[in-house]
Amino acid sequence: MDRTISDNERTIDFGSAAEALESELAAVCDTGWSELTEDLRRIVFSGGKRLRPKLAWLCAAIGGTQSERVLPLMVMLELTHTASLIHDDVVDDAPKRRGVDTIHVQRGRAAAIHSGDYLMGRAMQYLKAYKELDVDKIIGDLTCEMCVGEYMQQDTAFSLEKQPLEQYFLRIKRKTALFLKACCLVGAKVGGLPEQTQEQLGEYGLNLGMAFQICDDLLDYSSARKTGKKGGQDLRCGVFNLPFLCAAQLSPEPEMLALAEKRRKTNRDVERLIRYVKSSGGLDRAKEYAEDYTEKALSALKQVPDGPARKSLENLAAALVRREA
Amino acid sequence: MDRTISDNERTIDFGSAAEALESELAAVCDTGWSELTEDLRRIVFSGGKRLRPKLAWLCAAIGGTQSERVLPLMVMLELTHTASLIHDDVVDDAPKRRGVDTIHVQRGRAAAIHSGDYLMGRAMQYLKAYKELDVDKIIGDLTCEMCVGEYMQQDTAFSLEKQPLEQYFLRIKRKTALFLKACCLVGAKVGGLPEQTQEQLGEYGLNLGMAFQICDDLLDYSSARKTGKKGGQDLRCGVFNLPFLCAAQLSPEPEMLALAEKRRKTNRDVERLIRYVKSSGGLDRAKEYAEDYTEKALSALKQVPDGPARKSLENLAAALVRREA
Repeated sequence: MDRTISDNERTIDFGSAAEALESELAAVCDTGWSELTEDLRRIVFSGGKRLRPKLAWLCAAIGGTQSERVLPLMVMLELTHTASLIHDDVVDDAPKRRGVDTIHVQRGRAAAIHSGDYLMGRAMQYLKAYKELDVDKIIGDLTCEMCVGEYMQQDTAFSLEKQPLEQYFLRIKRKTALFLKACCLVGAKVGGLPEQTQEQLGEYGLNLGMAFQICDDLLDYSSARKTGKKGGQDLRCGVFNLPFLCAAQLSPEPEMLALAEKRRKTNRDVERLIRYVKSSGGLDRAKEYAEDYTEKALSALKQVPDGPARKSLENLAAALVRREA
Repeated sequence: MDRTISDNERTIDFGSAAEALESELAAVCDTGWSELTEDLRRIVFSGGKRLRPKLAWLCAAIGGTQSERVLPLMVMLELTHTASLIHDDVVDDAPKRRGVDTIHVQRGRAAAIHSGDYLMGRAMQYLKAYKELDVDKIIGDLTCEMCVGEYMQQDTAFSLEKQPLEQYFLRIKRKTALFLKACCLVGAKVGGLPEQTQEQLGEYGLNLGMAFQICDDLLDYSSARKTGKKGGQDLRCGVFNLPFLCAAQLSPEPEMLALAEKRRKTNRDVERLIRYVKSSGGLDRAKEYAEDYTEKALSALKQVPDGPARKSLENLAAALVRREA
């Protein structure tokens, strides 16, 4: 992992905070039961971007808050995120995560469910550092929203009628964007920033999250080489992502729409759908949405006090959309 | 559910607190997504004993604390418990819980995993009522211990070598007893009781939990009619409960030990094992352990201030061992 956000001298160095985060995460994985410890280490140190703790840290840094004060928050956010990944992988029966075997593949479903719950328990333990703030309430709300988002996704799978475009935006807000918003918001709170700045940073995080998820959708149409995942996974699982929904709107071919709703798709089916989305301009239209959300994120930042931390948040938004962060 | 603990005039009436708990739980189940709401209602209102909130409430009542102050804690404990049940049922692939279809059977594994996570998120939201106490730390610790206990159980399944008697006690402590201890401890904290009384109530809860789990083990040898579950489930899953471990110690028949380690048991295998446990005195020996733990629980109560709340805790221990609570 690249531990500095940029070499630009106007940005801020995440290096020492990142190191403290890694040590604390290593301590968390030490459970006293060697198999569980192994399982947790494999996923926690599989090369995640630490985007959520980084956002919280940068937002706190706008108020000049020291890393030590933010560390428990950073750990808590990364653990909450990792727990949700472990459970999502069980749900999706995903064989790999960031190129390594998933826990349920390596050790079984039971191990994966309990590992995720373990990390949620550990996350909870870090809340006590912020008793005077509403961090527990915000993270609790967020966990619920994520679950509803995931539940919605499963519940509406393979049905275009149940997944209209408005539903899509609501779903990705719950699944992804509210988490990034919460990171910025609690970072700003811990940083002691005025309420208005907290809100602006929250607005930044929300729009960044929307853009982030749309970029993730776009990656599902890239080659496997680039992402380490098989392309077309969403379509295979009956999840209609933004490029597909845009294609369906721009060029609603009944044969393709019916194929998308088919439950057991062959590789050829998926390839046909990918070609359809590409040829009907779905990717370009989705990219425009991602750019709009990025613009909104950057515009929310404009009222936030200027300085190296803000500059880093700006760079992060630009890099995320290019998928380099 | 019987909402008064006893008609004995020296006990305390749980009635109005129980009603407030039920209303709050109903509100929690209202998620805004009808299928999820349905799933949650089915399990939350399937006739659970509300043992954990009741313990917390009784412990707080020893200090004379009003129900209102304890309500968020009661809700949080019941939600944490229910979340763990939902996930355990996925792990065990259990078709029924308290006589109703489990979520993963009714709606799929994904729904069950997300429903459990949702309840954990909701539980977290109630922590904010106790900012000045260490409730978040205690519940976080507990969640982790439970997960390690469950993980251990899966990890050592079907191996007698990996499940010696000492391991058994450690496992049920983590899986069950620490939860009841935590309920008593946080109840006592919220009740503002002196540290020594908190510890005594924690000790009561821990021993009660050990006895409770052993009684649960014993029920696995009763007829299906009594428990609503098929008997011999533990043996079927390769989990060696106390009656079996006692039988193996009292009368170690190699054929039976080998049969116990067999992975895919027929109904006849399970019936043979049940007969073996019964005939070699395993049930009686396990009952003695349960009685010892109940005695320890009652003895821990002796130093707690006397009154109707303590009397109710005493009755609860006696009833639990008879499995009537």
